Amino acid sequence: MAKSKKTPRPKAQTPKGFRDYFGADVTERSEMLAKIAEVYHRYGFDALESSGVETVEALGKFLPDVDRPNDGVFAWQEEDDGDWLALRYDLTAPLARVYAQHRNDLPLPYRRYAMGPVWRNEKPGPGRFRQFYQCDADTVGAASVAADAEICAMLADTLEVVGIPRGDYIVRVNNRKVLNGVLESMGLNDDSQRDAVLRTIDKFDKVGEAGVRELLGKGRLDASGAYIDGVGLSDAQAEPVIAFLTSKGETAAQTIGNLKAAVGDSKIGADGVAELEQIADLLAAGGYGPDRIVIDPSVVRGLGYYTGPVFEAELTFDIVDEKGRKRQFGSVAGGGRYDDLVKRFTGQPVPATGVSIGVDRLLAALREKGRTGLANVGPVVVTVMDRDRMGDYQAMVAELRNAYIDPSDPSKGKIRAEVYLGNPKNFGNQLKYADKRQSPVAVIEGADEKASGMVQIKDLVLGAKIAEGASLEEWQDRPNQFEVPRDQLVAKVREILEGYA
Amino acid sequence: MAKSKKTPRPKAQTPKGFRDYFGADVTERSEMLAKIAEVYHRYGFDALESSGVETVEALGKFLPDVDRPNDGVFAWQEEDDGDWLALRYDLTAPLARVYAQHRNDLPLPYRRYAMGPVWRNEKPGPGRFRQFYQCDADTVGAASVAADAEICAMLADTLEVVGIPRGDYIVRVNNRKVLNGVLESMGLNDDSQRDAVLRTIDKFDKVGEAGVRELLGKGRLDASGAYIDGVGLSDAQAEPVIAFLTSKGETAAQTIGNLKAAVGDSKIGADGVAELEQIADLLAAGGYGPDRIVIDPSVVRGLGYYTGPVFEAELTFDIVDEKGRKRQFGSVAGGGRYDDLVKRFTGQPVPATGVSIGVDRLLAALREKGRTGLANVGPVVVTVMDRDRMGDYQAMVAELRNAYIDPSDPSKGKIRAEVYLGNPKNFGNQLKYADKRQSPVAVIEGADEKASGMVQIKDLVLGAKIAEGASLEEWQDRPNQFEVPRDQLVAKVREILEGYA
Repeated sequence: MAKSKKTPRPKAQTPKGFRDYFGADVTERSEMLAKIAEVYHRYGFDALESSGVETVEALGKFLPDVDRPNDGVFAWQEEDDGDWLALRYDLTAPLARVYAQHRNDLPLPYRRYAMGPVWRNEKPGPGRFRQFYQCDADTVGAASVAADAEICAMLADTLEVVGIPRGDYIVRVNNRKVLNGVLESMGLNDDSQRDAVLRTIDKFDKVGEAGVRELLGKGRLDASGAYIDGVGLSDAQAEPVIAFLTSKGETAAQTIGNLKAAVGDSKIGADGVAELEQIADLLAAGGYGPDRIVIDPSVVRGLGYYTGPVFEAELTFDIVDEKGRKRQFGSVAGGGRYDDLVKRFTGQPVPATGVSIGVDRLLAALREKGRTGLANVGPVVVTVMDRDRMGDYQAMVAELRNAYIDPSDPSKGKIRAEVYLGNPKNFGNQLKYADKRQSPVAVIEGADEKASGMVQIKDLVLGAKIAEGASLEEWQDRPNQFEVPRDQLVAKVREILEGYA
Repeated sequence: MAKSKKTPRPKAQTPKGFRDYFGADVTERSEMLAKIAEVYHRYGFDALESSGVETVEALGKFLPDVDRPNDGVFAWQEEDDGDWLALRYDLTAPLARVYAQHRNDLPLPYRRYAMGPVWRNEKPGPGRFRQFYQCDADTVGAASVAADAEICAMLADTLEVVGIPRGDYIVRVNNRKVLNGVLESMGLNDDSQRDAVLRTIDKFDKVGEAGVRELLGKGRLDASGAYIDGVGLSDAQAEPVIAFLTSKGETAAQTIGNLKAAVGDSKIGADGVAELEQIADLLAAGGYGPDRIVIDPSVVRGLGYYTGPVFEAELTFDIVDEKGRKRQFGSVAGGGRYDDLVKRFTGQPVPATGVSIGVDRLLAALREKGRTGLANVGPVVVTVMDRDRMGDYQAMVAELRNAYIDPSDPSKGKIRAEVYLGNPKNFGNQLKYADKRQSPVAVIEGADEKASGMVQIKDLVLGAKIAEGASLEEWQDRPNQFEVPRDQLVAKVREILEGYA
């Protein structure tokens, strides 16, 4: 039989580069962000939530190496007035706009934090999405490096509060002014040569000291076999840059001493070293030792962008990567001082410093450390043996939901419970459903149980453990399914939940 | 002197119809949403976060009365493949797409909640923004009205958990099938006349019983003096509609009885009444009495859209509106059963029911009831008397931030504190800053205090109270500023914070 021709059905698909987040992927991120917000708030930072949409004019040019104003962003034109609007690509450009727009009403300095999605109109790739979360804290209008020190301290506290133990992270601090001093003392006044040196330094993370030496000199054969031209400096000329990158000593005092030597008699270099010294002193006064925050001139990420102190938080515990190799987890946050962001709008330079946490990376690290998932227990499922007694089952779930998991510690919350709402005819489907929901417990009350005032309790975690092949010995004291009087339902469910906490 | 011509500075402005949210406006909403999420999770609903961007194809036509596919949404065309993308305008259309896309992996029934911004490309107006929050919970794939009853119970629990006391809200339940039965028993088979009756019923909230009578008959002079044509029914024909709308009795049983009479021998009407009866029974079994949830056929909002049970939560306490008149706060949430959402994608009808909370309205209600703002205390501000001793001040804020507000109740969190980071030269500016930050306490340590091991503590809440003209009597025991030994700083700050909690 020929079907009548109709509009084809729409495809049920996320646009390319976008994705859906389900259950724990949403709640674990929310919980992490709530903990971060608590620390930021405690440090005197205020929440700011600007809209996802900005004028293209206010956003400004996105990537410095892209010509068209809308490249890299999702943009469209308003129908009535022809204005171009776009989705924000980060949280810093909106901060500059907000500060310029509301500066008369905001405190000065203005400390703010922001968390939320940003959008990038880029080619999606594996693990690279066109919408993702950012989480920023910035201080606008404070010239003192006390503001930078504060952000480093806050970052260290934040990592511990979300669940990264002391010893498993390090916040490293460097300063662009010191690098400027090094370049000045080298006599590099040619801008293009300076830029080439900056770009080379940026590769220090990847190619190491020897690689940077080659790239500052004649050039280098890279891993793919291609020859990369060097900057063309002599060994002697390159030496101060190397001295800078490798100047970290045993103590902050030693590092500072090495840096003083590296900048020679450059004024800006001396200023930069003094700033690092001041940051080190302030952090020591606040009780943040070198086991948490260190002065480390090998931090190069963002040195080309920032104008003063630069910081980066690295997680130092080992993970096994996709190729089975052991490596350190690496960077989860970075930031620094930048001074010209608001000037675009007002003509006035306004000092600012801030940090951005890589939300997805930090969340991945917490999963790696087993620091998430406590709240991810599935619900107790009350099954439906007799569809005419739905009221009895509703009464059970209401009772469970109103009961604390642990009456001695209400902070653990109340019992999660639901009644089966599908077609109850096939009881096997109800148990399959409970498995899919990762339920710890199924409750069963048929006509016989009802008549004798009992309920059946099925321990689904035990069932799953047995299915996984766990040694039965450790579980054999627990019966898989048992009957209890109806008025002991809550108590027995609590017992099972406690056993698996 | 002539300035060199440059690109004009960009305007620092939100696009029309968008706004920024600062401080408490952000955190109070987050806290409310977190409490709602806790209840939804406890009921077995799982979080879902889809992206803000969907294909226009998947979103489908927005408003039923708008022809162009992109009207009402912000949309743009992809450069590489010409696909049209758009910002989501609600959370229901994405749910339909997600369910159709992932249905093989999702449990059936699928309970999910979603919270987040949605965008509407509409003319902005006072209080009407083009980006706002929605907060939805839906059950997909459950045909039983037990799913509807569950959502009503969850809504009542949610309102109490966020801070609306029992007695200050009521959840009302109606059913579209009952209305269909009434129309059927009236013999209205002409679609256009049915639609006209539906549209008229929708005005019951505004024009009341007498108004609906006129509009179902010859017509009515509206408040602006314009004459609105009626549907043209005789008084006798209109009677069943009026009987339906006014059928709420003293008890659920009476209401059900009245409805049975109103639907006559319509089969669908009888089904609808039976569903309402079942919902009333299930709610009674779960302990939800008529002080919280009632069957009320006067609920008409959404009756034209939904296909079965319809529910609405109203706040019943009085507020004073902008014209000084006392009125009830009104609706804060609504929902119902709809069956064809997923069919667009799969061709299969899937039953679904859900509720949407008006985030901004509920938040406004909580503010009205004084249920927010507990976490909105400004930070303790440590002033800078001597800029060379920034380390001492950093040590103070670190100590304060590490101290619980109330050591006997860690759930109240730790003390919020910051050091002044602006130019410290003008001390008056530091105190003005503390006022702007709504700080409860300023801490002062000059050279004299340092030498004698003391700090000055300035009680800024007291100062503000005096400035407000509060009776000094109630405050006179509190000195405005006093000196304490440095090692009692935390204890004294705690005392002041407790006094104002």
